[in-house]
Amino acid sequence: MPSSDRIPHVVIVGGGFAGLWATRALARDPVRITLVDRGNHHLFQPLLYQVATAGLSAPDIAAPLRHILRSQDNVEVRLAEVQGIDTAAKTLALADGTSLGFDTLVLAAGATHAYFGNDHWAAHAPGLKTLDDALLLRRKLLLAFERAEAETDPEKRAAWLSFAVVGGGPTGVELAGTLAEIARHTLRSEFRNIDPALAKVRLVEAGPRVLSSFPDDLSEKARRQLQKLGVEVQTGTPVADIDADGYRLGDQRVAAKTVIWAAGVAASPLGALLDAPRDRAGRVQVEPDLRVPGHPDIYVAGDLAAIQSAGQPVPGVAPAAKQMGRHVATSIRARLRGQATTPFAYRDFGNLATIGRMAAVVHFGRLKLSGALAWWFWLIAHVFFLIGFRNRVVVLLNWTMAYWSYQRAARIIFGPPLDAEPVTKPTSEEPDAPRIG
Amino acid sequence: MPSSDRIPHVVIVGGGFAGLWATRALARDPVRITLVDRGNHHLFQPLLYQVATAGLSAPDIAAPLRHILRSQDNVEVRLAEVQGIDTAAKTLALADGTSLGFDTLVLAAGATHAYFGNDHWAAHAPGLKTLDDALLLRRKLLLAFERAEAETDPEKRAAWLSFAVVGGGPTGVELAGTLAEIARHTLRSEFRNIDPALAKVRLVEAGPRVLSSFPDDLSEKARRQLQKLGVEVQTGTPVADIDADGYRLGDQRVAAKTVIWAAGVAASPLGALLDAPRDRAGRVQVEPDLRVPGHPDIYVAGDLAAIQSAGQPVPGVAPAAKQMGRHVATSIRARLRGQATTPFAYRDFGNLATIGRMAAVVHFGRLKLSGALAWWFWLIAHVFFLIGFRNRVVVLLNWTMAYWSYQRAARIIFGPPLDAEPVTKPTSEEPDAPRIG
Repeated sequence: MPSSDRIPHVVIVGGGFAGLWATRALARDPVRITLVDRGNHHLFQPLLYQVATAGLSAPDIAAPLRHILRSQDNVEVRLAEVQGIDTAAKTLALADGTSLGFDTLVLAAGATHAYFGNDHWAAHAPGLKTLDDALLLRRKLLLAFERAEAETDPEKRAAWLSFAVVGGGPTGVELAGTLAEIARHTLRSEFRNIDPALAKVRLVEAGPRVLSSFPDDLSEKARRQLQKLGVEVQTGTPVADIDADGYRLGDQRVAAKTVIWAAGVAASPLGALLDAPRDRAGRVQVEPDLRVPGHPDIYVAGDLAAIQSAGQPVPGVAPAAKQMGRHVATSIRARLRGQATTPFAYRDFGNLATIGRMAAVVHFGRLKLSGALAWWFWLIAHVFFLIGFRNRVVVLLNWTMAYWSYQRAARIIFGPPLDAEPVTKPTSEEPDAPRIG
Repeated sequence: MPSSDRIPHVVIVGGGFAGLWATRALARDPVRITLVDRGNHHLFQPLLYQVATAGLSAPDIAAPLRHILRSQDNVEVRLAEVQGIDTAAKTLALADGTSLGFDTLVLAAGATHAYFGNDHWAAHAPGLKTLDDALLLRRKLLLAFERAEAETDPEKRAAWLSFAVVGGGPTGVELAGTLAEIARHTLRSEFRNIDPALAKVRLVEAGPRVLSSFPDDLSEKARRQLQKLGVEVQTGTPVADIDADGYRLGDQRVAAKTVIWAAGVAASPLGALLDAPRDRAGRVQVEPDLRVPGHPDIYVAGDLAAIQSAGQPVPGVAPAAKQMGRHVATSIRARLRGQATTPFAYRDFGNLATIGRMAAVVHFGRLKLSGALAWWFWLIAHVFFLIGFRNRVVVLLNWTMAYWSYQRAARIIFGPPLDAEPVTKPTSEEPDAPRIG
């Protein structure tokens, strides 16, 4: 119990699932919370691929943290970037030059994509973790079809119509399936010089199968559903190189002007600011109650935490992050009351991944679904979990209309231009046309 | 009539109201059309201020040109930037290095904002013409409140809560009215250190009254409605200077970290590529049938054209651009048939401007409305004219929910960060709080 009437200050870094759920779970506790995030919004990351593929607008899957927490009086939301952690003085150094003291720190800064030491691939194969990533990918995808339409050299045109997604996890599978749908249906009859349906979409996975967190038979069903949507699945060989014109797979060189990286995840660099053990992905190896070894007032939750539950590593998925966030809140409450903390136990409610139109796989205990039924299951679960009533309605409306029309509402290119590349000039000038009038 | 069976090639530059309406009006004519635009979308510019003020998403008010025109077989849409016009050879030079020949050219490249020779103001007072402009303004507006929340120096905090809109035309009035609503209602109870309702919103107009294209009494009503919404209206003095911290009005210096430019419009620089007379705003002075003097196969339409109708200059509004676009199509058709062209006559259907929640002015012939009735009129007219069924539904839905909740759905900050400015450190460190547990 606090020895004075000053209220303990809990600083939570990161407004994702772990940080936001911890914040909300502490709503009635005698603490003062500061929630620090670099962005002003909570992002519903499971639908980020829909923003990248122009199905949803950025605001459809994001809600301002201030707005979500407006009625929770014990929270102050701070838009700021953390640059340093002084564990002895118990202060954070922020990028705006100020510092922020804490009694208890909850580090829930999540993860970013990683290139396994091949950082030069980043320029050619962007990943998908933030709204800005999604809008960059959207620009890249839409512009590739525009470039193909303008290009007169057949080989270069084919390269603009060649897309590759590296990484056969849920994000890679979603992106590849949706890309194939865009090429085959959404853009049909909109171009005059190219047939978008001839676009090649390849999904490259180093391991033996896609969706490796699912049982073998569901992986196989996912692969078949991808192929039915028009995706070529390349498993068993890791990507050896990526440049501006394509990638190399063993000895095979594949031309592709658009490569998307969905293969590697690394923990936020903020984990390195603690003197604590970390795993290969940079995640902080926490104690069973999610506290950092040697730092009894510092918790790590969400994708930044490496922890086992029932002998299995806890996966980096939204439900696990929410559960960790709530567990941290329970632990803080217990300590305020002078009680002991309990170890975190992950409740695995199952695993689901969408692939494309009417295509998904679901694995809940002994229940295994694939195809249309799994897709409906996935749809309902995701709309249900979207934060904010308005977003749910808008997302459902967009999806309903997209489903019937094959259209995608957010096919708008904006933002900084990508590198301009000259198109190949036609080899012969077209003959003069007659004058009008 | 063409002397051979080659189909005449009409190149239309700009997919705004003028260019798109010209394109669609030529759907059944024996021409081959290439519509060239730097962006991939038609933009419903009258609602752009709603994107800037976080009420709507960018895709809500934009539709891909390819999609709009997918069924019009005589059109090819080309995403490209025009860099040169060779009127003798009848070719356009494009930024991607290719050239595009034409038999008839329709230049409908619109207008951009202008700073009357004070281009250094652009960095401090961005304008509003494109989606990128709107998203930049949104970032600026939302970040100003965040900066105020983090700032501890009272004077600097007040400057972050001081907003100015320069220019009392329809865009300036809409922006100022909406900003006042955001400060007073939308952000209520979301901040802990500031009261957003104390924000100052000023509308600065050099002329004697706001909305000068309306009759005196409606201008006066607009001014009173703005004041009721909390906007301070400063008329009669031009802005003398703008910098990063505010602006000068005669001898008066006003601190304002956020200044928005809605005062000046200049025609697209493409007009200067023709050897044709131009007015002070850079608009091409066209002949009565919208052709360029000395260039019988080149038309200019929309905001880029300077023309009189019934002795009055045609205003730079969407209905005028649409009418010009259709007139160009009629003229091209007449010449194909060997008939004479007719002069353009502007049909003025009236004038309407929105100010804020339940506040607008409408002037249709002898009908003058203001307040709630005018607002409903404005709402119905704008939703009706929005292109694309889906957009109408989404926009209506967003507005209905925004109206009841005072909320704005698109309050998401993304895109490149603005210049970081350090906040003032608190003068005294807060005392140590007790430890938890």
